[in-house]
Amino acid sequence: MTTTTVPPIESTKPASEGAWRHQHVLDLDDFGRDEIETVLNLTDRMREVLDRRIARVPALRGHTVVNLFYEASTRTRASFELAGKVLGADVISLTASASSVVKGESLIDTVRTIRAMGSDVIVMRHSSAGAPYLASEQIGTGSIVNAGDGAHAHPTQALLDLYTMRKHFGDLTGKRVVMVGDISHSRVARSDMWGLAAMGAEVVVCGPPTLLPRGLRVGDRPAHAETGLPRVRVETDITKAIEGAHVVMALRLQNERQQGGLLPSMHEYALQYQVTAARLAHAHPEHLLMHPGPKNEGIEIAGDVASGQHSIIEEQVTNGVAVRAALLYLLCGGTATEALR
Amino acid sequence: MTTTTVPPIESTKPASEGAWRHQHVLDLDDFGRDEIETVLNLTDRMREVLDRRIARVPALRGHTVVNLFYEASTRTRASFELAGKVLGADVISLTASASSVVKGESLIDTVRTIRAMGSDVIVMRHSSAGAPYLASEQIGTGSIVNAGDGAHAHPTQALLDLYTMRKHFGDLTGKRVVMVGDISHSRVARSDMWGLAAMGAEVVVCGPPTLLPRGLRVGDRPAHAETGLPRVRVETDITKAIEGAHVVMALRLQNERQQGGLLPSMHEYALQYQVTAARLAHAHPEHLLMHPGPKNEGIEIAGDVASGQHSIIEEQVTNGVAVRAALLYLLCGGTATEALR
Amino acid sequence: MTTTTVPPIESTKPASEGAWRHQHVLDLDDFGRDEIETVLNLTDRMREVLDRRIARVPALRGHTVVNLFYEASTRTRASFELAGKVLGADVISLTASASSVVKGESLIDTVRTIRAMGSDVIVMRHSSAGAPYLASEQIGTGSIVNAGDGAHAHPTQALLDLYTMRKHFGDLTGKRVVMVGDISHSRVARSDMWGLAAMGAEVVVCGPPTLLPRGLRVGDRPAHAETGLPRVRVETDITKAIEGAHVVMALRLQNERQQGGLLPSMHEYALQYQVTAARLAHAHPEHLLMHPGPKNEGIEIAGDVASGQHSIIEEQVTNGVAVRAALLYLLCGGTATEALR
Repeated sequence: MTTTTVPPIESTKPASEGAWRHQHVLDLDDFGRDEIETVLNLTDRMREVLDRRIARVPALRGHTVVNLFYEASTRTRASFELAGKVLGADVISLTASASSVVKGESLIDTVRTIRAMGSDVIVMRHSSAGAPYLASEQIGTGSIVNAGDGAHAHPTQALLDLYTMRKHFGDLTGKRVVMVGDISHSRVARSDMWGLAAMGAEVVVCGPPTLLPRGLRVGDRPAHAETGLPRVRVETDITKAIEGAHVVMALRLQNERQQGGLLPSMHEYALQYQVTAARLAHAHPEHLLMHPGPKNEGIEIAGDVASGQHSIIEEQVTNGVAVRAALLYLLCGGTATEALR
Repeated sequence: MTTTTVPPIESTKPASEGAWRHQHVLDLDDFGRDEIETVLNLTDRMREVLDRRIARVPALRGHTVVNLFYEASTRTRASFELAGKVLGADVISLTASASSVVKGESLIDTVRTIRAMGSDVIVMRHSSAGAPYLASEQIGTGSIVNAGDGAHAHPTQALLDLYTMRKHFGDLTGKRVVMVGDISHSRVARSDMWGLAAMGAEVVVCGPPTLLPRGLRVGDRPAHAETGLPRVRVETDITKAIEGAHVVMALRLQNERQQGGLLPSMHEYALQYQVTAARLAHAHPEHLLMHPGPKNEGIEIAGDVASGQHSIIEEQVTNGVAVRAALLYLLCGGTATEALR
Repeated sequence: MTTTTVPPIESTKPASEGAWRHQHVLDLDDFGRDEIETVLNLTDRMREVLDRRIARVPALRGHTVVNLFYEASTRTRASFELAGKVLGADVISLTASASSVVKGESLIDTVRTIRAMGSDVIVMRHSSAGAPYLASEQIGTGSIVNAGDGAHAHPTQALLDLYTMRKHFGDLTGKRVVMVGDISHSRVARSDMWGLAAMGAEVVVCGPPTLLPRGLRVGDRPAHAETGLPRVRVETDITKAIEGAHVVMALRLQNERQQGGLLPSMHEYALQYQVTAARLAHAHPEHLLMHPGPKNEGIEIAGDVASGQHSIIEEQVTNGVAVRAALLYLLCGGTATEALR
């Protein structure tokens, strides 16, 4: 018997403390601004915990988080593992190469089995868009967090991006955020679009026409009905796109795009779309430079700006642990009011 | 210095609380009914812990469990990891792909090294029958748990099966348990036969003649001397086998069996041996449907019965964590009487 | 809120308690004898902890250790994982196969990202000599521990070797330590040479000329300037080398050496350089037999002596956990005086 006492996590939430209606976190397209604010406010408190000399609170002691990764990942897996441990949860990491996948067990069977073992949250990454949705429909109780599904969504990355921007700007309303690169294959870009739209930011996407999602044409903001995405401004000229930007986010360009014939060459891409100091000179003087990582310096981003004074790339990483801790806490039934006292 | 107090785990066990004579858990062929009862009774208490709001007790704080898996596994590895963490043990997972195996280190050397680092229990899965026996002979002190060795044994799966059946029936004496499928290559079937025999259940095995162990012929109960197995009834006709069954357990059919020429086709197998609603109509009205997982729905088991009202497949998974926690507790010197107060 | 109290880890260190000047542990060539003594003295206290019934202290609670292994490893990874857990640290293990390496993320980017997540110590193994140095130059705050870089260095293995020898001899001054085998490709041998030189031991290296580092010739102690190594005696005749040895350390011979043409055959090697009982008869009567593991019995070491009365190979493994715990503790700002009260 231990005399350690753990703060109670109430299952009923007073309305005053912030909206939270989700059993799962699959994408941001179904998040209202109120819920995003709940997460970001709680993330503030998690950041305080991370800055303590002993950066641990036992808020999720006795809870189990399972990382179920069907795709390789260092940073996202480690970030969730740390987020869970900061709150005292037990975290188990299962990767595809060491899992029942080789026996052909179905995704649904795997998820239901992990749930039956007593896991509270399953953090899932999968190369197929929609896999976490399928899992969420079958799991019954417990939560699914989408840690990246194909080229579809990566909501926790988007939330950490929103948090990092809000930390610098206070309010995102009317702030111009420019994403440059392979918009079409970027689950980060998609989730960021939804989150930024909800927060009232102005979104500009920029890349070669072959790397823009179907339905997005140069010009102003095609309707949602045509693209399945929120209204964004589309540019193929990076100088025009960056003009007056408060945030410039360079997206990772994957080698496969060139092999797939969507790009003439990486060199050609870098010439036209690399985020460089010269191009950033057109942005707002107080602009922020972001990148979801891992980055290819010399391809989508110049080395000097990646480590320059406007870069907040490492701050994004730190905030990622905090925002994931906030989500795990909310999904396990914690409330923002009582958190972490 | 911490003020946390941990319940003492006595090394001497009063005889009254239940028999326990094992340093290792390798198979159930050397378990008496008294020892199985000790495990199942303790599992009851572990189930209570799992049902708590904070499902953790520090009973094994300071103990180390190492998962040493030479074969891919999601569920068994995660189940042991959770079982250890529920009791406050530290659990380290080593898998073959990331281990010294690539350097050609011998199994014995690996096991002795892990023991020398201070591990209390090594949970081992290996594709070769007998590997955990070899390890147990060389380790000196400390414990080995067999988490599956080739087609030989899987005693913790059998114990969770026994626990799950006992939970529903109270006593297994005279209960008819039918295992259907690839008996020959199933380590689950082998360990279940031993456990069920010890508990006084009546065992029927059913499958195509090519998938029955050598020496098992259709008809009643060949002697142990001929098969190296406990006496079981053998059937190749699934309708006859299921007649009056209290438990029907479908075993996983592996694709390799067809490739190996032991089966004409998976389709043919499903026609003759799939556990379906029509066939289960011949079982006892209160029968239980079990499967060790991962299951191939549409091959050895029909999808509707797998998720039907007689199915207790997910309950097996939950009980697996509890039974493994009970075993880890006993192997680390805990006693049933004082457990978990 | 927990009532657990954790011993304070002071950031200022009184000079009296032992020297410690390192932010990183990369090799022993920049360790003075005073610092090595600090580590070994603290290791004594860690051994006491390991021998407790509950072998845990919360000295590093709230600290995070990340194992970043670009090469397969069972023992070193598990040893660091246990060392961290013994002190209450959270340990996260990332392996190359499941990491961003497949996305081509740079080493520096990975290390900076892991640091930004809040890790205190990154334990790194890499097939390229120098990789941990590169990481240490880029990480800013936080610590890097080299867990083996190519054929260059393995300082924690050397420290555990020194600790194990000191435990038996009290003082290493003038003790003769003979390393036999593939000196050229052994990161263990290199780090041991530096550590033993610092402690005043006499070092003899012995192996076929093709497996000696460039610049080392038979005869007495070539100067540092010629070899980049401390002064050691070189022998190619194992009987001469072992004469009067207080410690004989057999090094692992890798199959690749034969394939690479550096050896006529493994059999030939074993005939000339295997550490056998007959050869050990020439050593000091109280000699110790060591091996860094994993060992090839029948190649570089005879099976009977590996498990014979002079062998302390498993003691090395146990001490490895203790010495790594001592290093983690020092790198996280703990002091020898207050440790583990």
